[in-house]
Amino acid sequence: MRSRARSRGLRKPMSWLTATYLVTCDERDVAARAAAIASEQSVECPLEAIGEQRILDEIVARVTAIEPAGPGQFRVDVAIAAQTIGANPVQFINMVFGNASLWDDVAFAGLDVPDDVLALFPGPRHGIAGIRRLLGAPARAMTNAAMKPQGLHVPELAAMCRTFALAGVDIIKDDHGIDDQPYSPFTERVRACQAATAEANASTGRTALYAPNLIGTPRVLRERARIAREEGVRAVLVAPMLVGLPAFFELIEEFPDFVYLAHPSFGGARRIAPEFLFGRLLRLFGTDAVIFVNVGGRFGYTHATCAALAGGARAPWGALRPALPVPAGGMRLERVEELLDFYGPDSMLLIGGNLLIERDRVLERTREFVERVAAHRFAQAPLAQ
Amino acid sequence: MRSRARSRGLRKPMSWLTATYLVTCDERDVAARAAAIASEQSVECPLEAIGEQRILDEIVARVTAIEPAGPGQFRVDVAIAAQTIGANPVQFINMVFGNASLWDDVAFAGLDVPDDVLALFPGPRHGIAGIRRLLGAPARAMTNAAMKPQGLHVPELAAMCRTFALAGVDIIKDDHGIDDQPYSPFTERVRACQAATAEANASTGRTALYAPNLIGTPRVLRERARIAREEGVRAVLVAPMLVGLPAFFELIEEFPDFVYLAHPSFGGARRIAPEFLFGRLLRLFGTDAVIFVNVGGRFGYTHATCAALAGGARAPWGALRPALPVPAGGMRLERVEELLDFYGPDSMLLIGGNLLIERDRVLERTREFVERVAAHRFAQAPLAQ
Repeated sequence: MRSRARSRGLRKPMSWLTATYLVTCDERDVAARAAAIASEQSVECPLEAIGEQRILDEIVARVTAIEPAGPGQFRVDVAIAAQTIGANPVQFINMVFGNASLWDDVAFAGLDVPDDVLALFPGPRHGIAGIRRLLGAPARAMTNAAMKPQGLHVPELAAMCRTFALAGVDIIKDDHGIDDQPYSPFTERVRACQAATAEANASTGRTALYAPNLIGTPRVLRERARIAREEGVRAVLVAPMLVGLPAFFELIEEFPDFVYLAHPSFGGARRIAPEFLFGRLLRLFGTDAVIFVNVGGRFGYTHATCAALAGGARAPWGALRPALPVPAGGMRLERVEELLDFYGPDSMLLIGGNLLIERDRVLERTREFVERVAAHRFAQAPLAQ
Repeated sequence: MRSRARSRGLRKPMSWLTATYLVTCDERDVAARAAAIASEQSVECPLEAIGEQRILDEIVARVTAIEPAGPGQFRVDVAIAAQTIGANPVQFINMVFGNASLWDDVAFAGLDVPDDVLALFPGPRHGIAGIRRLLGAPARAMTNAAMKPQGLHVPELAAMCRTFALAGVDIIKDDHGIDDQPYSPFTERVRACQAATAEANASTGRTALYAPNLIGTPRVLRERARIAREEGVRAVLVAPMLVGLPAFFELIEEFPDFVYLAHPSFGGARRIAPEFLFGRLLRLFGTDAVIFVNVGGRFGYTHATCAALAGGARAPWGALRPALPVPAGGMRLERVEELLDFYGPDSMLLIGGNLLIERDRVLERTREFVERVAAHRFAQAPLAQ
């Protein structure tokens, strides 16, 4: 997400976005591929079918840069007219990576968003600072644990929630597979886990937050958000690619008081650079904290991808609040120090199943997790920025 | 989407889905990769963290088959407990391809859905037979044209709509980039295009349908659907991956009278087999007609992919109505006969920009399109089935 000024012959004061694509092709084909992207992401028809000069001047997207990006790969910048998007966040996705997503040789890698378009997106309502305020954690790195496995009944989940809260975990989230199944119905679960958390908070003097998983069609999301709000919930887990980015965006508009943790489920990102999808796009759509799969866990992201992802979530970007990076996905207690040195204190570590592997020592292992995070001395600036 | 009976040690009468994945790896790793998928798509934690036998028996997904699928590639079947899904269509996607979507070596290739789960999905409300009834086209192949380019003002779009309807096109759709921009606001456009279509229908005695593009967050979709319904619209265009599958599903529930055409925008399908995503999943979620990118157009699908896609949209599948295949994406008038022989009469051809390339002969070219489709004699059974 570069911010260099662009002028190259574009008429002022009309506003243009610049979308960046990685195109895999022969050098002799790249100009044609770039032109094809520009057509596809605007008028989507042969230029000779266009009779009006105004449309050619103001609507047709145009290639503004082509640069080598590695062997057989090119970085292509395309300027897209902001007036084709207007104020509709769904049309925004449509115009930056709608039909081009269908091309195997094209990946969506980034965006330059002009101020007037960026102003359409309030972004995170709380962001890192808001999460810190809620948790009473002004500067330290934070912790997150997941209640697993799905299939447990409500009293067992509530007991696990209490254990994690007693151990000092900051945010305790439903596993993302926990929905409204008969073994753990939503309303009953939220009530019990919220109560267990409150009870533990009363005894520890800390502020752990329970974050239930909201999953469903837009109407179901709204119903469950209402129930959660009534029960006093302050943070929720949502998988934006699963519920749909538009529904996610609207949910945040309607329930701005929740802290939103974005779960990566269904976010298979090979065609959208993961650092862009998770680090930028979800922040643009309003998540406060973004869960992503960390290097060296169960998934294949590299150090470079994770650094760019966390960096993007926190970097200055117009008036958007920074979003909190939450590395996850097969993390182990033994890696706490390495992760902290990599991500720095503006991060929240999420350990899932690894806290549970000694079934009789969950409280002890979780305490160790919390204490190791609290005790860590940051030797240097984080590697990821 | 295979329907062979499965028993292999699964307890009855509990119901299990079977999801099929294509896994790219060494043969010596495939068993471990398959087990990892089964864990990820159910309990998402180490098995040793699970204390209850019930959860191991009834909740944990299990690998039921591993077969070679080409060099370095395997077809892996995983049985997933239906009780982890319940009646939530979003949880359905979560449990069949949520976290596994994040693995580069895994693609989602298909599903066996047991009857009790399939019964949760009404599927297409009209399907091929309903579209034929609306159009008064009991047996012939159908035609579809797109109003392009975005940037045209409402009177120009309405004039184009009238031209297409006079030429005898069956469905006239907004280009998928047309939203609610100042140059063609939604309400004004729908009213004008619907009126132009009605006027042309009165003169031809045919039933052309105008299909406006519905794009936006769930609330915006609903508002625009209401406006369209008030204006007498009978068919709409929606891009399900763009608006989100859950919002798409709910829109159809709320507005079942519309014929739904699914647009492929943002459906970049490398991680979900395109024949499965467009041919099956969108049908399951209720589309009546599915627009997809045809072989030999601007996109790279093969004959085999297109045949499987169209075949899947029409094949018997529980009680779900067949969905109408609408090949598109850079189609040319010259290819009409080839396309018809390939897809057969239960199809609708969509030609976009190619009808517009001679700007003074749009009516003539469109008439030629309609007449060539009407005049075609099908020599044989369609190749795609």
